[in-house]
Amino acid sequence: MEFHYPTGRKYVARPEKENKNDLPDKEIIYSNRGMTLEEDLNETNQYYLSNGLAVIHKKPTPVQIVHVDYAKRSTAVIKEAYFRQASTTDYNGISNGKYIDFEAKETKSPTSFPLKNIHGHQIEHMKNVIKQNGIAFVIIRFSATEEIYLLEGEHLFKFWDRMKNGGRKSITKQELKTYGHSIELGWAPRIDYLKVIRNLYSF
Amino acid sequence: MEFHYPTGRKYVARPEKENKNDLPDKEIIYSNRGMTLEEDLNETNQYYLSNGLAVIHKKPTPVQIVHVDYAKRSTAVIKEAYFRQASTTDYNGISNGKYIDFEAKETKSPTSFPLKNIHGHQIEHMKNVIKQNGIAFVIIRFSATEEIYLLEGEHLFKFWDRMKNGGRKSITKQELKTYGHSIELGWAPRIDYLKVIRNLYSF
Repeated sequence: MEFHYPTGRKYVARPEKENKNDLPDKEIIYSNRGMTLEEDLNETNQYYLSNGLAVIHKKPTPVQIVHVDYAKRSTAVIKEAYFRQASTTDYNGISNGKYIDFEAKETKSPTSFPLKNIHGHQIEHMKNVIKQNGIAFVIIRFSATEEIYLLEGEHLFKFWDRMKNGGRKSITKQELKTYGHSIELGWAPRIDYLKVIRNLYSF
Repeated sequence: MEFHYPTGRKYVARPEKENKNDLPDKEIIYSNRGMTLEEDLNETNQYYLSNGLAVIHKKPTPVQIVHVDYAKRSTAVIKEAYFRQASTTDYNGISNGKYIDFEAKETKSPTSFPLKNIHGHQIEHMKNVIKQNGIAFVIIRFSATEEIYLLEGEHLFKFWDRMKNGGRKSITKQELKTYGHSIELGWAPRIDYLKVIRNLYSF
């Protein structure tokens, strides 16, 4: 499904089923395709929380509320609202005193990660986080092969600048292998990105 | 205006105009009453961001999306959704390597802050943050007198436990004067909570 802004601009910020967890009832979700990156990360973050390793949550999907119906005394029903573009990354929190901030994206492309999945203000946000001595990165999943890579902000910025300077509009899988860190899908936690980060920043 | 959960339980988690900034058009907001705590904090956080002092944002209001209309090709319109209870605090971010996490509440009560404005899972969240060596607190504004107090999580927990043990269900203003930190409303930043925190945690 595709989200579009009131402006008519296509909503490309999130993977296909990103808003899945905002839906009220699993049954109405047409999915036999296994778990989305978001679901795996939510389970991972729950594992970290339960085991006292980190407190990291996904931010709610930003919604612009236009009309709320208070007719029913029991419930306020939002009758008109629109998906807004996120001004920051989707996930942030803390582990052992370190501020952690990241965006997670899935791509169907088998060979590269299209940078259109990231927004300029998210790049700016990650740069601001790093300036404050926080840890910022992106987790990229190739849905076709279920390969997962963690790419630190500092490297992401270089590929972003390459695009801005007229270079290719994506990061090749080979570049992710070279500059990023492969994460094997596990059981508990499903996507152990914290292990990668703790090794990189030794905490 | 009052929000209610689908359960029918009254939505008491947020001050009267908490969702104001989710409304699309300032004009439709019936407010000559000056800025809300949320607006003041958003301006404060923008000031911190612009001046490279901190990267702290309010999380979007959690909404449970039930029905989205894709009829119009230009726009996905959310036709049915409900306000969800927040599972964490409203604000978090980083300043100079320190993770900062807080909830902000306004009360119309002139003499005390009713603890019903805080939820048990928010207390748990703040405790988890502190366990990870983060900084957690609550900012309380008495709307009648525009007095603002910052109360550190460690103190909030004591008043919370007092209530859980059958004691009073609120924190008196005098207790906030004693255990909290008064913040004068300023111009830029409007509510300089970071100054208080930097003094307390010397960073």
